[in-house]
Amino acid sequence: MEYGNGTENGIGKSNGISNGHGIGDGHGNGYVNGNGKVNGEKVKKMKPMDSEVLREQGHIMVDFIADYYKNLEDSPQDFPVLSQVQPGYLRDMLPDSAPDHPEPLKELLDDVSKKIIPGLTHWQIPSYFAYYASSTSVAGFLGEMLSAGLSVVGFTWLTSPVATELEVIVLDWLAKLLQLPDHFLSIGNGGGVIQGTGCEAVLVVVLAARDRIMKKVGKTSLSQLVVYASDQTHSSFRKACLVGTTSSAAVDPLVPLGKIAKSYGIWMHVDAAYAGNACICPEFRKHIDGVENADSFNINAHKWLFANQTCSPLWVKDRYSLINALKTNPEYLEYKVSKRDEVVNYKDWQISLSRRFRSLKLWMVLRLYGAKNLRNFIRDHVNLAKHFEDYVAQDAHFEVVTTRYFSLVCFRLAPVDGDEDKCNERNRELLATVNSTGKIFISHTVLSGKFILRFAVGAPLTEEKHVNEAWRIIQKHASIHNKKY
Amino acid sequence: MEYGNGTENGIGKSNGISNGHGIGDGHGNGYVNGNGKVNGEKVKKMKPMDSEVLREQGHIMVDFIADYYKNLEDSPQDFPVLSQVQPGYLRDMLPDSAPDHPEPLKELLDDVSKKIIPGLTHWQIPSYFAYYASSTSVAGFLGEMLSAGLSVVGFTWLTSPVATELEVIVLDWLAKLLQLPDHFLSIGNGGGVIQGTGCEAVLVVVLAARDRIMKKVGKTSLSQLVVYASDQTHSSFRKACLVGTTSSAAVDPLVPLGKIAKSYGIWMHVDAAYAGNACICPEFRKHIDGVENADSFNINAHKWLFANQTCSPLWVKDRYSLINALKTNPEYLEYKVSKRDEVVNYKDWQISLSRRFRSLKLWMVLRLYGAKNLRNFIRDHVNLAKHFEDYVAQDAHFEVVTTRYFSLVCFRLAPVDGDEDKCNERNRELLATVNSTGKIFISHTVLSGKFILRFAVGAPLTEEKHVNEAWRIIQKHASIHNKKY
Repeated sequence: MEYGNGTENGIGKSNGISNGHGIGDGHGNGYVNGNGKVNGEKVKKMKPMDSEVLREQGHIMVDFIADYYKNLEDSPQDFPVLSQVQPGYLRDMLPDSAPDHPEPLKELLDDVSKKIIPGLTHWQIPSYFAYYASSTSVAGFLGEMLSAGLSVVGFTWLTSPVATELEVIVLDWLAKLLQLPDHFLSIGNGGGVIQGTGCEAVLVVVLAARDRIMKKVGKTSLSQLVVYASDQTHSSFRKACLVGTTSSAAVDPLVPLGKIAKSYGIWMHVDAAYAGNACICPEFRKHIDGVENADSFNINAHKWLFANQTCSPLWVKDRYSLINALKTNPEYLEYKVSKRDEVVNYKDWQISLSRRFRSLKLWMVLRLYGAKNLRNFIRDHVNLAKHFEDYVAQDAHFEVVTTRYFSLVCFRLAPVDGDEDKCNERNRELLATVNSTGKIFISHTVLSGKFILRFAVGAPLTEEKHVNEAWRIIQKHASIHNKKY
Repeated sequence: MEYGNGTENGIGKSNGISNGHGIGDGHGNGYVNGNGKVNGEKVKKMKPMDSEVLREQGHIMVDFIADYYKNLEDSPQDFPVLSQVQPGYLRDMLPDSAPDHPEPLKELLDDVSKKIIPGLTHWQIPSYFAYYASSTSVAGFLGEMLSAGLSVVGFTWLTSPVATELEVIVLDWLAKLLQLPDHFLSIGNGGGVIQGTGCEAVLVVVLAARDRIMKKVGKTSLSQLVVYASDQTHSSFRKACLVGTTSSAAVDPLVPLGKIAKSYGIWMHVDAAYAGNACICPEFRKHIDGVENADSFNINAHKWLFANQTCSPLWVKDRYSLINALKTNPEYLEYKVSKRDEVVNYKDWQISLSRRFRSLKLWMVLRLYGAKNLRNFIRDHVNLAKHFEDYVAQDAHFEVVTTRYFSLVCFRLAPVDGDEDKCNERNRELLATVNSTGKIFISHTVLSGKFILRFAVGAPLTEEKHVNEAWRIIQKHASIHNKKY
């Protein structure tokens, strides 16, 4: 398994510059250190940034990454979806300490091919069906590049006005695509903010809700506060303390929940990390009916809006609830303009101070694909999941366990003679067997004591043929198990 | 101010594919949607990922970013360091909603040049001296690209073993460069983890410390817990509620503090977000003498180790203190191998579940530069700061306010006739005036009631000539002020 076609070009320039002369520290990475002369030639001092080195090495890296995707698609047999390495495999392959001297990019990329790639579980390979996908795209990747390239920090408006202003605008755009109520838009008291992850979104919402209620009931009541969540909620929820149904992508009944929340003065948060993305399609929007009664709402655009890790938009009805809970005003960040009412300082909407130019890639995804294509990408995934569900439904050995709304199918080998324990064991074995082939990766959960298999479509290269092949593998290994029992 | 030299290439391919035919949705972004024919030619359906589109557009983006750095260096006069736009400037320049149809990359990059770049405060321009730098580098940028390209999620060992194993190894490497005591290495009960930001590092440490003490004293004592920190601590600390001296980069006396902490059973955290990076140089290591008595230690490698936003390594003496406070075991993440002792699951070391392949860029920075060059980069910055300090010290109108240890100089116009109020006012005006030139950007803080100017060296392109020019500007505007008063 070799990578890096195309990485030969452009490295040649640095050959001939080597250590061992007692003058320079460079090992062929474009420069040496020390302003010295090597072999009689004047050589450049190594610098952390040089536009021409960035250009040369950036092109090499683009080819390396493009080759990776080409190979994932053309030669999937070379890439076990679930990495097959053993714990501790890497320790013996790398030195015990960082090098004193620079190493050439070519050598590093050789190591990536030989040592790093085998230890990857390939989330972007067409036959990845585990957990929820972490959907990337060309636009999402380009957005990451540009954000890393401009490399500004947007903690206050002043520290890069556009980082803040674009985020306000793009989250209004996305709120409109999701048909969120106007009170989540920036025009009133509401607004959106991109959190690093869904967990961070939930945490800041819990802090805002806590702050709001404690202003009413007093600080000493902290231990009496209660959080309600589904029994299938995301693990972040246990840490941060809202509503999430990670296991099965079930949909909570928001309308009656909203009425209860309203009458008791409860902060209602709707965590639609995965399925919320599908609500840009009119036919799926009904699943968040009732969101108009929520205080806050979040989706993970890196899960299913092709935004690359990480991008977790959060909208709140009352931005001051967040700001009151999270605001800090250290003197070293004070500036006259920051106090103007129209200025948003996102440091006051999140846990951390530092923040990258987070909205750039979301803006690029929305513009480079357009809403129609994004909807179609999502519909393609849902249709592929439906296709898989049809296979399951047609095989008497299997059963679909929960209603499928989106691109996740929860299914299992059906129990024989009502023996649930043996059924769980058989599904556990089937999971381990199909994943150990390296040809597909699916995951599992437990619902009401049942061990369930999860087949989630969302990788950006997945097509019908990959779903067909996945079903063939699952069916084949199931029939081996059926013979065994 | 035009960008995108080189962006003309490779776009040509998509010309001629346009909307308005009622068949495809594409506007020239490499594809159209719909499997239809345009102008009689069979066209490809638009997909979120295509290796050849990634290659073509990735090369365009590399040139765009390389041109940005070239222009920052060659034509700094075209880029006000501190953005000069007014609040709300962007709203009128962008449409009210996301486009339905895809737009070409060229059009997007034109918008970046004309609408986005003017709203940036250029953190990477040579004359950026505000706050602390957010140091990028070619290697850090390449690391971001590769991480975004491979796009795996490393929440458990299983979900990409190398993402976890490389992090364990690279943080051991870095701990050795920093000469941290062995108990922070992964060989014993300690170990390192990369947090998203310093704020996250501090937050997880507070949670671990709280968990440890509450196991001793009982949960009802929560309101009696106390956190000690310097009066100059970072704003995150107020939220997360350790030790930080963000304003002036002062150094707390760790040895006596460690003795006190030990005798009272207090968790001691050393937040060396900025200055800790310099401790890879033997001559600066003394500033963290006493770290052997700390329970935890963090640095921000994106501040001054050329790792690009964001990368915040945290080491703990007892990894189980973190894990006990933060572990979750949702069924959908359970897997046999995860229970083996040698397996690290970083989801249990942080707030969030999701995490990118965080160690990749740190590994690339360490290898592509080598320890010797990294030390020299830091020494160059310290020497430039010392050079600036010498200017300040030689001008009787100015004074150096605090002892300079690293690359931050805290200084001000000296008071006249002991009038501190007027002195504060003059320094405030000087700050506003020099920053409004757009030629340099410095920041400020308040120490013991004094309004102080901060000159922090750390941008990757800064050279002596930029420091000389900065001093010339400051001195010039100060003399105008001197005449005024």
